Amino acid sequence: MVKIAIDAMGGDKGPSIVLAGADIALVRRPELTFQLFGESAAVEPLLEAYPRLKAVSTFTHCDVTVQMDDKPSQALRKGRWKSSMWRALEAVKKGEADVALSAGNTGALMAMSKFCLRTMAGIERPALAALWPTLRGESVVLDVGATINADAQQLVDFAMMGGAMARALLDVARPSVGLLNIGVEEMKGLEEVRVAGQILKEANFDHLNYVGFVEGDDIGRGTADVVVTDAFAGNIALKTAEGTARQIAAHLRDAMGRTIMGRIGYLFARGAFRELRQKLDPRASNGAVLLGLNGIVIKSHGGTDGVGYANAIEVGYSMVKNGLLSKIRQDLGEYHRDGFVREIAEASLADGE
Amino acid sequence: MVKIAIDAMGGDKGPSIVLAGADIALVRRPELTFQLFGESAAVEPLLEAYPRLKAVSTFTHCDVTVQMDDKPSQALRKGRWKSSMWRALEAVKKGEADVALSAGNTGALMAMSKFCLRTMAGIERPALAALWPTLRGESVVLDVGATINADAQQLVDFAMMGGAMARALLDVARPSVGLLNIGVEEMKGLEEVRVAGQILKEANFDHLNYVGFVEGDDIGRGTADVVVTDAFAGNIALKTAEGTARQIAAHLRDAMGRTIMGRIGYLFARGAFRELRQKLDPRASNGAVLLGLNGIVIKSHGGTDGVGYANAIEVGYSMVKNGLLSKIRQDLGEYHRDGFVREIAEASLADGE
Repeated sequence: MVKIAIDAMGGDKGPSIVLAGADIALVRRPELTFQLFGESAAVEPLLEAYPRLKAVSTFTHCDVTVQMDDKPSQALRKGRWKSSMWRALEAVKKGEADVALSAGNTGALMAMSKFCLRTMAGIERPALAALWPTLRGESVVLDVGATINADAQQLVDFAMMGGAMARALLDVARPSVGLLNIGVEEMKGLEEVRVAGQILKEANFDHLNYVGFVEGDDIGRGTADVVVTDAFAGNIALKTAEGTARQIAAHLRDAMGRTIMGRIGYLFARGAFRELRQKLDPRASNGAVLLGLNGIVIKSHGGTDGVGYANAIEVGYSMVKNGLLSKIRQDLGEYHRDGFVREIAEASLADGE
Repeated sequence: MVKIAIDAMGGDKGPSIVLAGADIALVRRPELTFQLFGESAAVEPLLEAYPRLKAVSTFTHCDVTVQMDDKPSQALRKGRWKSSMWRALEAVKKGEADVALSAGNTGALMAMSKFCLRTMAGIERPALAALWPTLRGESVVLDVGATINADAQQLVDFAMMGGAMARALLDVARPSVGLLNIGVEEMKGLEEVRVAGQILKEANFDHLNYVGFVEGDDIGRGTADVVVTDAFAGNIALKTAEGTARQIAAHLRDAMGRTIMGRIGYLFARGAFRELRQKLDPRASNGAVLLGLNGIVIKSHGGTDGVGYANAIEVGYSMVKNGLLSKIRQDLGEYHRDGFVREIAEASLADGE
C-alpha cells in the first residue's frame, strides 16, 4: 500500500481535476490509498462521482485554502496548521502518508514544506527537480524553482539528490551528472559552478558519474541523466523550453492548416502527429519533486488536467516504491560533508586565485 | 556605401563560407564593399571564384589566425595587432570600415573588441544581443554571452542598448522591454533584477516601454520586443531553445518517417514543412551584435553556411543604415547616469531592506 496525502484545493481548476487524477492513478496502481484535504463543500459532492476513489480515501475538511496568488509569508500566516496544503504535508510528517501532493501555489508549498518537514540532515536548502523529456528518454533537471543563488556546496548537494532521484526513477545504476554552464570560453561560467565541478570531479562518487559542464542544448539531447543548476537558470531553461515547444507547435499547426495540400497531408499523417503530440505532451512529465526534505513532496502543474495530475501521483508512487529518501540519505552519508568535501572546495577556491 | 571589415578566417569552415556569404550579401545590397583579412594562401585562391565580390573588396594578408579553441588571453597575446580578427576590428576603429564581422572564437572576439574599440562612455561592460524568432516576429534578447553577474545598473544599460537595437532593426518607435525573471513568488528573482526593474519603472524613458518581468516562455511568445538578462541565464535560455527546436524537429522527422501514411502525408504537406523549416532555420537569425562598444561588431555562428553568413552581414548593414551607434548614444545621453539613475537605485535598495 502506498499512502498519498493530497491538497485537493490546489491548482487553477481546484478539486475537479485532482479527484479525476486520483481516480485515474488508482486504476493504474490499485494499491494506492488517499487522504484528501480541502473544503468539504467543494470536495465532498465531487467525490460522490468517484465511488472507487471514495472507497480507498479519507476526507478531512479544512477551513483554509491557500490561494494561487498568496505570498508564501501570507500563506504561512493564514494557512499553517489548518490549510489543506499544510494538512497534506503534516500527514507525511506524522508518518500517516508516504507522499504529499499539491497543484497549488509553488512558493507557498515550498515555504510550508520547509517549515513542516524540515530539510534533511546535511542539506541546507531544498531543490525542485523536474523530469525533462529528451531525445534519449528522460533526464532529471534541478533546481527549477526552489533555491536561487545556490553556492558550490548546494550545487553538489543537488547533484547527489538528483542522482538519487534518477536511480529511483530512471532505472540507471550510476547516473551521469552534468553541471549546466555556458560555453563562452572567457567566462568559464560562474565561480560556484566551477568549484562544484571541481568537487564532483575529485570526489568521484560511486553512485554518480560526473560528466562535466553541459550547455542548454545538451538538456534536450539527453547528454546527462541529471542536469544540475541553480533555480534562476533552471527555471528560465524549463520555461524557455516549454515556450519553444508551444511556439513550434503553433507554427506547425499554422503551416499545415494554411493550404489544402497541407490539410490533406495532415489527414494522412494523423498517426504521426498523434505520436508527436504525445512526445510533447507536458502532462506526461508533470510532477516535480521537492528534494532535500524529510518526506516526499510532489508539485503538480496548476494548469494540468486529470491525466497530468495522475502522472504527478505516479511520480510520487515511484519515489516511494524505489526508496528515494533512503537512497538520498545513503548517498549523503557516503561522504564526510564537513571534512572531505569542504577540503576540496577550499582547495579549488585557492586554485582559482 | 556600407563598408564591411571581415575576419575571413573565422568559423568552423573558414574562408569558404565567409566568401560565399559575402557574395550572397552583395547581391542583396550592391552598395556593400568589403575589407577581407586572412591568410593569403587560404583566402586569395578562393576569392578568384567570386569576381563580383573581388571587384568590391580589398584583401590584407595576416600571419596570425585566432583558433576556435584559443583562450581569450592567448588570442590577445598572439593575435593583437596582427591577427585577421584584430585587423578587422582595427579597420572599424580607424574609421575605414562601418562594421566588423567574425564567425570565429566568441571569447576572443569579445576580448579583442573591448581592447581595440573600448566601451562607449557610460557603459562598463558590453553585451551580446541576439535576434530571437517569436510568434509575433523577432525580439532582441541580451545578454546571451558577454557579461555574467551583471548588476542592476548594467541590466539597465542592456535595456537601453537593446531598445536602441530594436528601434534600429525592428522598426518600432518605442520598443517594449521586459526583464527576464522567474515567477516563483517566494524568490521574486535576483536582487539585481528587482532593482533594475525599479529603475526602469521609475525612469519611464521616452524611448522604451518597460513592461515588467517576463518569464522564459514569454520570449518565444514575443511578449516584449527586448528581453534583458545577464549572460549566464541568457546563454542558457538561447541554447535551451535551440536544443528544444532540434529535439522537436527530430521527433517530427521520426514520427513522419516511421509509417507509410506518415510518408504520404509528408509528400502532400511538403510545402507546409518547407515553411516550418524556414521559420525554424537558425541561419535566418544568424548574427549577434556586440553592443556597448565604439563600433559595430557582429558575431556570426561558427557553424553556419554562406546563407547564414550573408544574414549576419545584413544585420550589420541594417545597424549602419539605421544609425545604431548614434541611437544608443542619444538614449544614454538622455539620462544623467551618475545622478538620476543612481538615486533611484539607492532608493530601491533602501526599500528592499
